[in-house]
Amino acid sequence: MPLGGLGEIGKNMMVVEYGDDIIIIDCGLMFPEEDMPGVDLVIPDITYLQERKDNIRGIIITHGHEDHIGALPYILPQLNVPIYCAPLPQGLIQVKLKESHVHNVKIHAVQPGERIDLGLFNIEFISMCHSIPDSAGLVIRTPAGTIVHSGDFKLDYTPVDCRPTDLGRLGQIGAEGVLLLMADSTHVELAGYTPSEKVVGETISTIMGAAKGRVLVTTFASLVSRIQQVMDAAVLYNRKIFIAGRGMNDIVKMALKMGYLKAPDGLIGELSEMHRLPPNRIALVTTGSQGEPTSALVRIANREHREVQIKQGDTVIISASPIPGNESVVAKTIDSLFKQGAIVYYDRIAKVHVHGHASQEELKLLQSLIRPQYFVPVHGEYRHLKLHAKLAEGMGVQPDNIFILEDGDILELSPNGGKVTGHVPASNVYVDGVSVGDINGVVLRNRKMLSQDGIVVAIITLDASTGQMAVRPDIVSRGFVDPEAGRALLEESKDMVSRMFEEEKQRISDSAVINNRVRDVLSKFYYDRTRRRPMVLPVLVTV
Amino acid sequence: MPLGGLGEIGKNMMVVEYGDDIIIIDCGLMFPEEDMPGVDLVIPDITYLQERKDNIRGIIITHGHEDHIGALPYILPQLNVPIYCAPLPQGLIQVKLKESHVHNVKIHAVQPGERIDLGLFNIEFISMCHSIPDSAGLVIRTPAGTIVHSGDFKLDYTPVDCRPTDLGRLGQIGAEGVLLLMADSTHVELAGYTPSEKVVGETISTIMGAAKGRVLVTTFASLVSRIQQVMDAAVLYNRKIFIAGRGMNDIVKMALKMGYLKAPDGLIGELSEMHRLPPNRIALVTTGSQGEPTSALVRIANREHREVQIKQGDTVIISASPIPGNESVVAKTIDSLFKQGAIVYYDRIAKVHVHGHASQEELKLLQSLIRPQYFVPVHGEYRHLKLHAKLAEGMGVQPDNIFILEDGDILELSPNGGKVTGHVPASNVYVDGVSVGDINGVVLRNRKMLSQDGIVVAIITLDASTGQMAVRPDIVSRGFVDPEAGRALLEESKDMVSRMFEEEKQRISDSAVINNRVRDVLSKFYYDRTRRRPMVLPVLVTV
Repeated sequence: MPLGGLGEIGKNMMVVEYGDDIIIIDCGLMFPEEDMPGVDLVIPDITYLQERKDNIRGIIITHGHEDHIGALPYILPQLNVPIYCAPLPQGLIQVKLKESHVHNVKIHAVQPGERIDLGLFNIEFISMCHSIPDSAGLVIRTPAGTIVHSGDFKLDYTPVDCRPTDLGRLGQIGAEGVLLLMADSTHVELAGYTPSEKVVGETISTIMGAAKGRVLVTTFASLVSRIQQVMDAAVLYNRKIFIAGRGMNDIVKMALKMGYLKAPDGLIGELSEMHRLPPNRIALVTTGSQGEPTSALVRIANREHREVQIKQGDTVIISASPIPGNESVVAKTIDSLFKQGAIVYYDRIAKVHVHGHASQEELKLLQSLIRPQYFVPVHGEYRHLKLHAKLAEGMGVQPDNIFILEDGDILELSPNGGKVTGHVPASNVYVDGVSVGDINGVVLRNRKMLSQDGIVVAIITLDASTGQMAVRPDIVSRGFVDPEAGRALLEESKDMVSRMFEEEKQRISDSAVINNRVRDVLSKFYYDRTRRRPMVLPVLVTV
Repeated sequence: MPLGGLGEIGKNMMVVEYGDDIIIIDCGLMFPEEDMPGVDLVIPDITYLQERKDNIRGIIITHGHEDHIGALPYILPQLNVPIYCAPLPQGLIQVKLKESHVHNVKIHAVQPGERIDLGLFNIEFISMCHSIPDSAGLVIRTPAGTIVHSGDFKLDYTPVDCRPTDLGRLGQIGAEGVLLLMADSTHVELAGYTPSEKVVGETISTIMGAAKGRVLVTTFASLVSRIQQVMDAAVLYNRKIFIAGRGMNDIVKMALKMGYLKAPDGLIGELSEMHRLPPNRIALVTTGSQGEPTSALVRIANREHREVQIKQGDTVIISASPIPGNESVVAKTIDSLFKQGAIVYYDRIAKVHVHGHASQEELKLLQSLIRPQYFVPVHGEYRHLKLHAKLAEGMGVQPDNIFILEDGDILELSPNGGKVTGHVPASNVYVDGVSVGDINGVVLRNRKMLSQDGIVVAIITLDASTGQMAVRPDIVSRGFVDPEAGRALLEESKDMVSRMFEEEKQRISDSAVINNRVRDVLSKFYYDRTRRRPMVLPVLVTV
């Protein structure tokens, strides 16, 4: 039962149930899409789980990215269950829960190769390579057979800091027989193999070696292998590393402490001391690869950063791809870095990034190793799932045994075969400010409408005794017309409302009727005159 | 003097002036970006031109895309000047002006190789290959020297319907000596050569040949060569062509009439007759490659099209790339086509599109042929212009002779050299509904704010004689909280306002002060309780 992540990229959550035992795989968030204005985050709907709290044996986290752990602070207070994950996600979750004031959660660290028992389920963690260390695939042994969940993965035979994908173990499990494979579909559109992380290290090293001034590298804070490669290049070219951005600082500290990052003593300096070194001794690592307005890089690009200003001769490497939807803010950041005299390297013009998901040939290799009886593509929008299903079919999985599920679908596997037997609630739950779930379709539709042509508020003051207008109607607008240029139009519309009341005063009395009439008259008038459709909000005051 | 198109992709307009003579190259629009909610179109600011109307000798159009002709209906009524362009843009402009009720404009057709005199300027049209037929480069002979403007172009040695880029003539002009080159920077980020249009024809033909059901091809209406290739494949595989979408229909008709499209008699059928043919005899051509909500493809994908419904076995080819900003709507369209059982081919998974702009090697070839004294990269955001400048420098143009201009910059070339000598108004002019230019920063900021957390209107009714509240304040909201779930919060906020008046009634009297106090109290209350910041709009009614 996927409660998130199927038919969308984000808020991954997969529920596996047998008898009275439930386990949950991942608990992620999704960043709002453009049709969700003002929403901060989107999390899965856990109605189904709330009704079966006592059966839930635990939440298993495959790795520490937000789309796999980000909903925990919102969902754990509703489901008091333990978490099982590798050490790095454990550390990241601890920080996250502390910041959100969520306490008393048990988080158990599990190493690759280890097994845990949760109810009837036995779960083995398998090392998988991805764009964050300590990513795991899961082998879930159930009375009905073995389930393999790939987590997010790619192969990468020469990873920089993570253990390679454990192909040997996957092959062994495949040989033992697998009932169901669930595998990452994110990059099924791409032919061939995803390049190794090593490729990026070579580019960064070449650029840093040739740079005469400072080198700024921007990447995801969680992309520890990338940061390691920047550090290695800095050592090679005798530069000191400085870090800008709180998120980057926190993760680098944790990764150094836990041994995921290795740096010689004295490599990392304090940002406030950076100005003492000549430019060619400086390598700066920052957040901001997605053009986030408050990130270090964007503040630097906008000349709003206290300690770092771009100087002629600086080199900036944006070691990331824009996540869909962020393309234009990232482009604007690049433009303003160029304007200030930096040389900027980014994914369109240099090999400064590789992504963390398997391409077609890697997905085929996984199918070859696992040879599952049933297949469910996961982690993808509908077209990704469909293409992945087609790929599995080409690899020999029976078409009837491939299920393209969407959030909420219940897939039942029994000795008689597989079948989608129903649907549980799985809509988007919006987080906006402190509230979870109170933002609904009406509120979002109103926000969208307001953003298009603004709002006009018409205040009609009626005399309670006579039912007639006590004073001339007042009309105020925001986001509709320029206050100066539109003044005459708004005045004229007040006259329209006055006239309407004079003409119809005998006929209208019910306030709902008055509201509708005012709305109709004004909407039509404004549309005729401007071809715009502001929201018209009549307010009746009776005195 | 660029008035548009430099530092942005869109609203291209370049002004060339010598003594008392002005010519304008292109007059395009830009589609609004995400920070311009509710805006329909963006056009160039022509303040500079309005002040020198008598000096303008004409508008020269390089080709018929919207970012080169789209502002004409708005700008021509303000500048009564003739237009010079090739026959296809002439036809497109005529249709556009008629639809906009702009009359009495002289549009002169100029063939490639022809020359016209406009004041002191002599202008030669040169055949350039692009993603619409009849694209022109311009050779502008001035008393100061020759200017070459590339227009939008790529090389394509095997174009399908347009004349190839006239390399011979460009070489000849280069050999005669060129003062200034202005060249298309759109795809300067891409290494190598842009593939030929022929490549796409082969893919479409292969897919159509293998398809057992109907084949729907979606592309830009103006991409006549693509439509020609679909027609050629349809002839080859004995399918009849049907067209869905008014824009596509209009352009196909015009292109057939003018000879840009060639189709055997009887190839094109009426959409209403399509159901009479078996699926494998049908090829449908539609608009909608950018996910436009009212386009044929999107209505088909959403099951809202009267004559075409997707059936199992249909093949859809999206023969276009999403323009930046449209990625997610295009992806949603692909997803819903897949959900309804179509097989969908799109740019990420098949060679179904090539773009119309020169890549790096083509830009180098142009530099080699023209060998200009001065270079101004055009048609690009800042990073494109910067990279193009670097490319030109690598090709031997003196760094001091390369100017990265932005909209409004005045570049003066004189015997003493080139210099940016000033700046003319060149901000965005917004078209929203029937109004041009009255939407400004305040209106857009309000729309953005409204879209984030909605609006709360507080109506305070004061007794004119006592200055005290006549009735309890009324508060209505839209897009802020759910009307049901938020009822208690809004009621509580009314009490806050009442209490404020009771406590402070001696001190506040001025209406601006009252408004500010109400706004502050409510904003703080709502933020404390919800962590949201709705727009708070106090309205005072005095009775």
